[in-house]
Amino acid sequence: MKPGFSFTLEATDGAARAGTLTTLHGSVPTPLFMPVATAATVKGVDIGRVRETGAGMILSNAYHLHLRPGEAIVEQAGGLARFMGWDGPTLTDSGGYQVFSLARQVRVTEDGAFFRSHLDGSPVEFTPENSMRIQERIGADVAMQMDHVVRLPNDRGTVADAMRRSLRWAARCRAAHSRPSQALFGIVQGGLEPDLRQESAEGLVAMGFPGYAIGGLSVGEGPEAMDAALRATLPHLPADRPRYLMGVGQPRDIVESVAAGVDMFDCVLPTRCGRNSLVYTFAGQVRLRNAVHATDDAPLEPDCPCIACRHGRGYLRHLFLAGEMLGPVLASIHNLTFYQRLVARLRAAIVSGRFADTRRELLATLASPDGVEPGGPPAAG
Amino acid sequence: MKPGFSFTLEATDGAARAGTLTTLHGSVPTPLFMPVATAATVKGVDIGRVRETGAGMILSNAYHLHLRPGEAIVEQAGGLARFMGWDGPTLTDSGGYQVFSLARQVRVTEDGAFFRSHLDGSPVEFTPENSMRIQERIGADVAMQMDHVVRLPNDRGTVADAMRRSLRWAARCRAAHSRPSQALFGIVQGGLEPDLRQESAEGLVAMGFPGYAIGGLSVGEGPEAMDAALRATLPHLPADRPRYLMGVGQPRDIVESVAAGVDMFDCVLPTRCGRNSLVYTFAGQVRLRNAVHATDDAPLEPDCPCIACRHGRGYLRHLFLAGEMLGPVLASIHNLTFYQRLVARLRAAIVSGRFADTRRELLATLASPDGVEPGGPPAAG
Repeated sequence: MKPGFSFTLEATDGAARAGTLTTLHGSVPTPLFMPVATAATVKGVDIGRVRETGAGMILSNAYHLHLRPGEAIVEQAGGLARFMGWDGPTLTDSGGYQVFSLARQVRVTEDGAFFRSHLDGSPVEFTPENSMRIQERIGADVAMQMDHVVRLPNDRGTVADAMRRSLRWAARCRAAHSRPSQALFGIVQGGLEPDLRQESAEGLVAMGFPGYAIGGLSVGEGPEAMDAALRATLPHLPADRPRYLMGVGQPRDIVESVAAGVDMFDCVLPTRCGRNSLVYTFAGQVRLRNAVHATDDAPLEPDCPCIACRHGRGYLRHLFLAGEMLGPVLASIHNLTFYQRLVARLRAAIVSGRFADTRRELLATLASPDGVEPGGPPAAG
Repeated sequence: MKPGFSFTLEATDGAARAGTLTTLHGSVPTPLFMPVATAATVKGVDIGRVRETGAGMILSNAYHLHLRPGEAIVEQAGGLARFMGWDGPTLTDSGGYQVFSLARQVRVTEDGAFFRSHLDGSPVEFTPENSMRIQERIGADVAMQMDHVVRLPNDRGTVADAMRRSLRWAARCRAAHSRPSQALFGIVQGGLEPDLRQESAEGLVAMGFPGYAIGGLSVGEGPEAMDAALRATLPHLPADRPRYLMGVGQPRDIVESVAAGVDMFDCVLPTRCGRNSLVYTFAGQVRLRNAVHATDDAPLEPDCPCIACRHGRGYLRHLFLAGEMLGPVLASIHNLTFYQRLVARLRAAIVSGRFADTRRELLATLASPDGVEPGGPPAAG
């Protein structure tokens, strides 16, 4: 473990775990949901309001910050947390996923990923070594190894090659990483092949990392395939290290992944859906543009402490119909608060030994993104 | 005066006045700057953050709210303040200015204004009588008379006709207005003609209103012409009633209008400029996109309490360059805070008898919109 970094397991209920992740910038309870601040801002939400959602740790992206404003500016401002005015722990993704999903003209060799910026087409190279240098300068509490992400489904040979390359890159990242106050996590790859996931996990564990991520999922493979990949991976990770499922997911994915033994999550859904007027509640999803809300003075959730829930649904709908920026802002704040309340509820259930009941209750009400509103017809997009 | 509505003059320094405006929803100090919540939202700023800027009273637009969501929905939600979650006084503009500036195919007769909605082209009619009915249902503490606004400069005959029609409409509004808890203000018209301004003011004062607005200014006539029109108007308004200069303006306009004896202001500039990365400071305007701010860790103003000033300028610039919504949000919050600090400073100067000095100091540093940043070349747009 790095100095200042630790993970303590406090309770388990079945495979589900409750713990505490400690960094030099503070401790956060797990299961943990990290809001995504892609460009050092949680989209549309000021950092004080982010804190009020209950968030304890924030994720940002080395890929985006490298391209704009550049790690030199973030470093000069005192590092990521200080740059965005956050007084708690932070984590940066290495850019492996963004190279896969955003970059243009990508060429991956044993050396690294060579591509063109999605912003201006300029040539960029990400190697395990410069990814470490970039993330060290950005200065989050946790850095992620550079990995090779491939589309799923994919042929076994391609998935195996990318997984083994990611293992070799993990070793190079480990060798290159030198910032004493920053923990480096390895990332398990291997697609949907149980034996490849196992090989990846065992390879990383043999090197020894303070935390392990499960990468390359939530890329269109569907919830059952994701759950199966998780079950093939988690038994091969050590119980005393945090397990971070990257980029996941829908509320039901969070519940099921916590049930399988995951500790940490990040996802853009709360803000992305919020900007599109889709909000989460413990009674299911609500599409705020629907006419049924026009004269509804009730808040989204009567027991939600967020500032959006100080307004009636009719007001929130009006903001979206009028194209007012405050609509996306308030819906994002509500969704971020919902995700924090969700993981807090899961944690409380684990600690009190009622996880199975809570899981069942939650899955009964949390709708899928194509679900229907309670008591209503299928909602319009 | 209406029950619950009053205005108390507490200090004068030359023509400048400090007072208190009291409504059923609370008291606010004057000089008063009202943020504009066109569609029942101050653009991009949640209502708690609006309160934190120091704002005491908010303006909204009957024209916009009538078209969307409709006054029935606002009324059903408990009125404007409750609809947007504001716990203080509110005011609605009648729509006279929006008919002039936004509506299509406008036809003005003695009866009223007939036009097509700028949203969907549907036919709308605004008469003094239905303007009162709409504003009563919206339920602000202060309603404005329906007036006839014309372009400036304009020929004297057109200006005189519109002013006299506005006077006749003022009488009809007064007769039609019946909401006991709402004060109705008259609006002085008359363009840039001193005698027409005097005729309008005297006509309104003869009818007797709890407050008087000066309308039809800040429509492109320039600051000197505006100051002259003000000087032609204010001596004809009673000292014991609040004087409200509508839609004004730049910080220097506020200073000069307070010097002339104005008590109330509203303007979209703080939020509109903020969205365009232009921020106000007591040392002049700052264009946040300028490269000079890239590595600047200093806040916009070290003594400003707003949440934007917890960040360095480099971070704010980054948000604008990255196209992040938080840039406009934070710049709007800073500008709204600046306007509140400006009127608070003017009030303190009046109360302590130092207004002339404060006015001189402020005018020396407040740049025009086309001004230059201190120490820098003319700024890029």
